[in-house]
Amino acid sequence: MSTSLLDYFRGRQKKGTAAVAKERLQILVAHERAARNRPSYLRQMQEELLQVVRKYVHVDDDAITVALEQEGNQEILELNIILPDQQE
Amino acid sequence: MSTSLLDYFRGRQKKGTAAVAKERLQILVAHERAARNRPSYLRQMQEELLQVVRKYVHVDDDAITVALEQEGNQEILELNIILPDQQE
Repeated sequence: MSTSLLDYFRGRQKKGTAAVAKERLQILVAHERAARNRPSYLRQMQEELLQVVRKYVHVDDDAITVALEQEGNQEILELNIILPDQQE
Repeated sequence: MSTSLLDYFRGRQKKGTAAVAKERLQILVAHERAARNRPSYLRQMQEELLQVVRKYVHVDDDAITVALEQEGNQEILELNIILPDQQE
């Protein structure tokens, strides 16, 4: 586990994102790149990862928030999914 | 961002997992469950998430490590992928 990913979480925490009492699913994809000029594919992976999630839970689009952030040589894709109270 | 996920990262950090200098991709899936008796699908999602990753990077099976941990009402799937030096 890299320090930079931990720092990222600390940073997010400081922003005061309130903990949601709802059931939820969170996906973090961190790409640590040795060379910054490598092409990034996280944005393209995003839709396919959501397709996998949708096989398991049925959620509306507005229950999903997506963020893509750059932290030094690390790129982080964050998917937050608020799950419905009653899952089938 | 929940405190428990942050705690999880702190815990991992304490175990002294050495930072690898290699380029890598890390996927964390955290399922925060309101009710613990809900069935978990993270183990089943694991293979499908890896299939998505394999569309973008070509890695050997031994470059992938998988861990599934339970932390209170949160279940965390961790996929660590060491990327080859030369990606196409």
